[in-house]
Amino acid sequence: MQTLLIYDIVDDRTRHKIAEACKDYGLERIQYSAFFGSLNHNRRTELLQRLRRLLGTNEGIIQLFPICDRDLRLAKEIKVPQDILEVE
Amino acid sequence: MQTLLIYDIVDDRTRHKIAEACKDYGLERIQYSAFFGSLNHNRRTELLQRLRRLLGTNEGIIQLFPICDRDLRLAKEIKVPQDILEVE
Repeated sequence: MQTLLIYDIVDDRTRHKIAEACKDYGLERIQYSAFFGSLNHNRRTELLQRLRRLLGTNEGIIQLFPICDRDLRLAKEIKVPQDILEVE
Repeated sequence: MQTLLIYDIVDDRTRHKIAEACKDYGLERIQYSAFFGSLNHNRRTELLQRLRRLLGTNEGIIQLFPICDRDLRLAKEIKVPQDILEVE
């Protein structure tokens, strides 16, 4: 199941750990605080448990959305890369 | 169509304008840089055009995902509110 995971975490150290956990589960960083990738039901449940433990009582919100193939095909992106104005 | 819009925008002023545009289109802020709400096809296209103009050549990424009802039912959230440790 394709999964989008987004978060807002106040504490830098906790946020970093959350990002590392997402990478451990094979998700790809698509924004600074957004990861995307394939997770089966068990892995998704495991990851959520791990994230809940990592967040603990730190202020923050983590949201996980399954994205079906149809929704993924309809997704849109606007992107301006860092170096767009650096090209001569 | 339920729509999730997430963004990473470097410039504060541009980021603020993007957020205001999302609000103008009736989307609700669910995270600092994530909005959610219902948009029909025309409104979605209009909003994307407006966001593209607002971003211009500023570094950033804006991603829009339609979220079908089934995916929405399977979505998960972990939330620790700001005042959890302020309660006596």
